[in-house]
Amino acid sequence: MRISEAGGEQSIIDWFSAHSSASHLQLPVGIGDDCAVLPAAGSTLVTTDILIENTHFRLDINHFRDIGWKSVAVNLSDIAAMGGIPTYTFLSIGLPDMDVDDAHELFTGIVECVEAGGSVIAGGDTVFSSTGITISVTQLGLVGPCGYTKRSSAKAGDAIIVSGTLGDSIAGLKLLLKDGLVKTEVEYPHLVRRHLHPEARLNASMASVNTGDVCAMMDISDGLCKDLHRLCTASNVGAIIESTKLPLSDELHAAALYLETTAADLAASGGEDYELLLTCPAEHVDVVLDAIVGVHCQATVIGRVTQSLDVVLLDENSNPTNWPNPWEHF
Amino acid sequence: MRISEAGGEQSIIDWFSAHSSASHLQLPVGIGDDCAVLPAAGSTLVTTDILIENTHFRLDINHFRDIGWKSVAVNLSDIAAMGGIPTYTFLSIGLPDMDVDDAHELFTGIVECVEAGGSVIAGGDTVFSSTGITISVTQLGLVGPCGYTKRSSAKAGDAIIVSGTLGDSIAGLKLLLKDGLVKTEVEYPHLVRRHLHPEARLNASMASVNTGDVCAMMDISDGLCKDLHRLCTASNVGAIIESTKLPLSDELHAAALYLETTAADLAASGGEDYELLLTCPAEHVDVVLDAIVGVHCQATVIGRVTQSLDVVLLDENSNPTNWPNPWEHF
Repeated sequence: MRISEAGGEQSIIDWFSAHSSASHLQLPVGIGDDCAVLPAAGSTLVTTDILIENTHFRLDINHFRDIGWKSVAVNLSDIAAMGGIPTYTFLSIGLPDMDVDDAHELFTGIVECVEAGGSVIAGGDTVFSSTGITISVTQLGLVGPCGYTKRSSAKAGDAIIVSGTLGDSIAGLKLLLKDGLVKTEVEYPHLVRRHLHPEARLNASMASVNTGDVCAMMDISDGLCKDLHRLCTASNVGAIIESTKLPLSDELHAAALYLETTAADLAASGGEDYELLLTCPAEHVDVVLDAIVGVHCQATVIGRVTQSLDVVLLDENSNPTNWPNPWEHF
Repeated sequence: MRISEAGGEQSIIDWFSAHSSASHLQLPVGIGDDCAVLPAAGSTLVTTDILIENTHFRLDINHFRDIGWKSVAVNLSDIAAMGGIPTYTFLSIGLPDMDVDDAHELFTGIVECVEAGGSVIAGGDTVFSSTGITISVTQLGLVGPCGYTKRSSAKAGDAIIVSGTLGDSIAGLKLLLKDGLVKTEVEYPHLVRRHLHPEARLNASMASVNTGDVCAMMDISDGLCKDLHRLCTASNVGAIIESTKLPLSDELHAAALYLETTAADLAASGGEDYELLLTCPAEHVDVVLDAIVGVHCQATVIGRVTQSLDVVLLDENSNPTNWPNPWEHF
């Protein structure tokens, strides 16, 4: 059955009302009026990201549920990047007249990710789109008790830390494009999941910020190379990264061989990692590492911030080497 | 020159930084980090609306500048509907690799409407879209000193008031679809402008809410028929509307003849009017009308709220008549 046969836009609003957490009912005004009304609050974080079919995802190498999940996760990752706590999610969704079951899978992924992040769907807009699926999410968050973390506060001498492992998502995407969904999910389940179903590092963010030792932080959405350059530019510093220290998953090593590249290159160029990139004074690095590991998230020192503005990658012999070409959308 | 030749996404961010009001620089964190950080505030209004090419607008019967304007105006209209004051605007824009001059016209329309509404662009996301232009706007607002107005607070006996005139926008669209942009702009400039360049009724909203006499309010975005039914359902009331009282522009009368319909039918079905629909106790109707007229906006009593749940339209002989078919997107 198509959406048009199931009641159109109103049926979608009804679905979200029935399947969302009841928390939005505690708002002064929740779903269903011209605006949501949110209670008075301290400093508010706001981020917005839009995912468009055939730019950010393709239906042939994806599950509808994962598309929904990821559309929210990339926004939660921005909240994590600032050390925030997710509060309210607003959805703008453009859909073709698609199968209702597929649409409900998409919505289920959205709701699952919103709830996993401790957020509440507080409003949105659903419209017809003749040209494919578009999902725009605006995520609000609260600043935690230790304040927020900007990308412009790195200082020369800081240690550079990343959460999790790098390169998994880009490897997953390359494999999906090469071999399709069915084969890749069997052979590289971890890499596929890292690409299709990213987890925002909300706990690692809060744990590290609560140490009071984090100087600068951002999330890695366009790959370490691009995003580290952004952090350095914003902070007016440089960096030295040791490629041998980049955290790599076992599956990435195996995939790199198959993809005729190296795991370190995939990790350094990457893209859609949604890991945290942060800096802290060298003398406090153990405190920050312990805090992140304490919430069951890997954390690795990969280099240090420098006064010189160059952003240098060192090879296995500690010689400067070229950054691999950054990742691009299809 | 295409966007890709002009520097891609970064050139767009740079454009907005150069052409936006400097107010966003006074935010704790404005454009350029993972999130915007907004200062602590009282109750916050949030609304989001998405405009998709060939669903909400067509390039052959539009100007890029008007598309940008309207994408913001429809959100400001939701803030007006709740009696709010616009504060911050967040943009998610999907663009094909279009001509840079056309893109700048689009952005100029966005900035002009944001500034006309007293808002500030505080963040966004710009991505490539292979399938046409998509603009998703999330608008934040503050609740004014007299509180916010819901659509669910109408009471039996209330007078029903609309701002401005009704039906102009749908007539403008029908004429544009029939005769194209060039001819229609010459022959029906007012109706075309009402369709392509709607004005959010922020002043009329604030003036009426500040009387303390408004019971229920919403904006008319899907036409009087649909939206009045929504207001009545939300308030658990009915309404009687006198079709002879619907406020009609001179151009609408002329266009109705040419479109082989009646002005009253266009006004009652309508769509994209972006006028205010509000109710107040009958004994305070002059106070509310005076307040709206005082900010140079037409205001008209078109009927009354009833205890019976029927939403009735009366013809010129005061007999119940069928509501005309509601407006649909192309």
